[in-house]
Amino acid sequence: MVDDSLRKGIGDIKPYIPGKSARDAKLEFNVESVVKLASNENPFGPSPKAVEAMKETLKALAVYPDQTSIELREALSTRLGVDKDCLIVGNGSDEIMQLAAATFLSAGEECLISENTFSVYEFATKLFDGEAVFVPLKDYKYDLEGFARAVTDKTKLVWLCNPNNPTGTAFSQSELDQFLAKLPKKAITIIDEAYMEFAETGGFPESLEYVKKGKNVIVLRTFSKFYGLAGLRVGYGAAKPDIVKYMNLAKLPFNVNRLAVKAGIAALDDKAFAEKTKRTNSEGKKHLYAELKKLGVAFQRTEANFIFIDVKRNCDKVFMEMMRQGVIIRPLASFGFGEAIRVSIGTGEQNMRFIEALKKVLRK
Amino acid sequence: MVDDSLRKGIGDIKPYIPGKSARDAKLEFNVESVVKLASNENPFGPSPKAVEAMKETLKALAVYPDQTSIELREALSTRLGVDKDCLIVGNGSDEIMQLAAATFLSAGEECLISENTFSVYEFATKLFDGEAVFVPLKDYKYDLEGFARAVTDKTKLVWLCNPNNPTGTAFSQSELDQFLAKLPKKAITIIDEAYMEFAETGGFPESLEYVKKGKNVIVLRTFSKFYGLAGLRVGYGAAKPDIVKYMNLAKLPFNVNRLAVKAGIAALDDKAFAEKTKRTNSEGKKHLYAELKKLGVAFQRTEANFIFIDVKRNCDKVFMEMMRQGVIIRPLASFGFGEAIRVSIGTGEQNMRFIEALKKVLRK
Repeated sequence: MVDDSLRKGIGDIKPYIPGKSARDAKLEFNVESVVKLASNENPFGPSPKAVEAMKETLKALAVYPDQTSIELREALSTRLGVDKDCLIVGNGSDEIMQLAAATFLSAGEECLISENTFSVYEFATKLFDGEAVFVPLKDYKYDLEGFARAVTDKTKLVWLCNPNNPTGTAFSQSELDQFLAKLPKKAITIIDEAYMEFAETGGFPESLEYVKKGKNVIVLRTFSKFYGLAGLRVGYGAAKPDIVKYMNLAKLPFNVNRLAVKAGIAALDDKAFAEKTKRTNSEGKKHLYAELKKLGVAFQRTEANFIFIDVKRNCDKVFMEMMRQGVIIRPLASFGFGEAIRVSIGTGEQNMRFIEALKKVLRK
Repeated sequence: MVDDSLRKGIGDIKPYIPGKSARDAKLEFNVESVVKLASNENPFGPSPKAVEAMKETLKALAVYPDQTSIELREALSTRLGVDKDCLIVGNGSDEIMQLAAATFLSAGEECLISENTFSVYEFATKLFDGEAVFVPLKDYKYDLEGFARAVTDKTKLVWLCNPNNPTGTAFSQSELDQFLAKLPKKAITIIDEAYMEFAETGGFPESLEYVKKGKNVIVLRTFSKFYGLAGLRVGYGAAKPDIVKYMNLAKLPFNVNRLAVKAGIAALDDKAFAEKTKRTNSEGKKHLYAELKKLGVAFQRTEANFIFIDVKRNCDKVFMEMMRQGVIIRPLASFGFGEAIRVSIGTGEQNMRFIEALKKVLRK
């Protein structure tokens, strides 16, 4: 047996529960025509410019990537107005979450984590022997006043998800300003903005300004959602140079593949794709709001590319019945909501297919 | 400052020193025509079948990868005759090194590491607060008897590189058998076989047999070298199901990109490419041996796709002068050899270019 050999902490880690795939739908449910609205992926696929850039790089793949993804950092630097020494690229932004903990979290230090949020914050905390301190949501929103009250002299990392996955709610610049002012100096705040490109309501934090001012903040962004590159694995962090320098020490040398670097650069440049993605999401959101209201179903208004729906019945049963209709959504029990689901906003057609399926399932 | 905030251990980590790239050669040395023989990459690029498989997957990249790279594990399972529950795929095999430490290494436990070997073993050890215990090479070879003498009741991980990077030497099945028999039960041996496909001398360990017998062994292989996919990031580990199950808990959910899975499957199947790679390496090796003998330069016979050369003068100076000739090799100071270099075996033409440049440099 190897159980006795385990590192302390590993036994406490809960397995990640991913959205089901089309493959799962076919294998487990014998469903052929499937709409996957479970993982907040871009319904248009990757940007055509990114696809072209990758094609041109395929034959160069025998060569190792640059250790710090310099070309993508240069492109991001220009785009964001942040020095390239303030940028670190990861194999998905979740790798940067792990790096933040690896670099800064010592055993027994406390990490503030919201309840009902993305699970990798808790994963990274436990992996490096931190103590997770949970703060409840307030009306489905991050409660930054609650976070402030949970601060102690052991607080080291603060994990914020904005907009929040899975509720779609966002906190504002002023809420964040007030919270950060109350933090002790040694604490580092990680702001995961995986969905920020979809946010529409005013007042969304200009988080890179904290980076430029040298605050202890790590802003995380990804190419997985808005840019349609979830399958390629590429995200990035922005932080002051000292933070980035040390995170690089904790990083494996060749963490980001060469195609990810090229595709990321091209995707940043594809304005037509970005415009279509944003417009479709915005229209889809309004359409879904209207349809959900007709069905009399409670939901949260979203700043992201998914909607949190309060189905008020066992979410795993709803998931199974939706699956039989060929629509894959995410049941939210693993996020701590036993009676809610999350649906990604898709194309107009996908959204209608979801609504039709939901109608049938809720009628039962 | 963030220095006070660092996790214990991070300050001890030495930055990884990669091989220089063609980009570096152009930027730093103003050299246009460059032969890169610094990182043991396949001179033929990736397998054409892998390139085709990737092309077909580009448009599907908006979708997340499978969490356990199931399709590649299935292909590997068939190929290797090892159950798929004994396989774990990584973002390069170096990710599995990190996972092994994350899963099994507790603070203060000892890890046996050879001197003059691949640096990620020490990195992973320090990242998880292990104590590195170094064992010298013996005649440029891993000294497994020396390893056995270094075992204590605190020994947890044993890191073996076979063939060894950068000396190219390999230990045999019987040496390994004798060593493993002396290990305490809770110790886990990681056998990094990144270059095993190039080994030609008889007696190379059938390491997967240990896995099949349920020993505490993790065998690591990669698609970066023989299969020409270093830029894509994909490697794997084989170990008994208990070990794999726990390493999966320490793993980020979507560690391997979708293209890596498809390319890996296709590359395994490309027999013509494998045959060409093996033959070219074997011929190049003999050619280089002969030329190096003519030059009167000491070298080690290799079981890999690189040759260790004892230049008996400052390796960084040799590196710089070779760079000016447009040939990038690896100076081995960071491996603990101040007067040796490592050159990858390339195509016939690349090998000649290396020899011509070396002649000029050594003549000075």
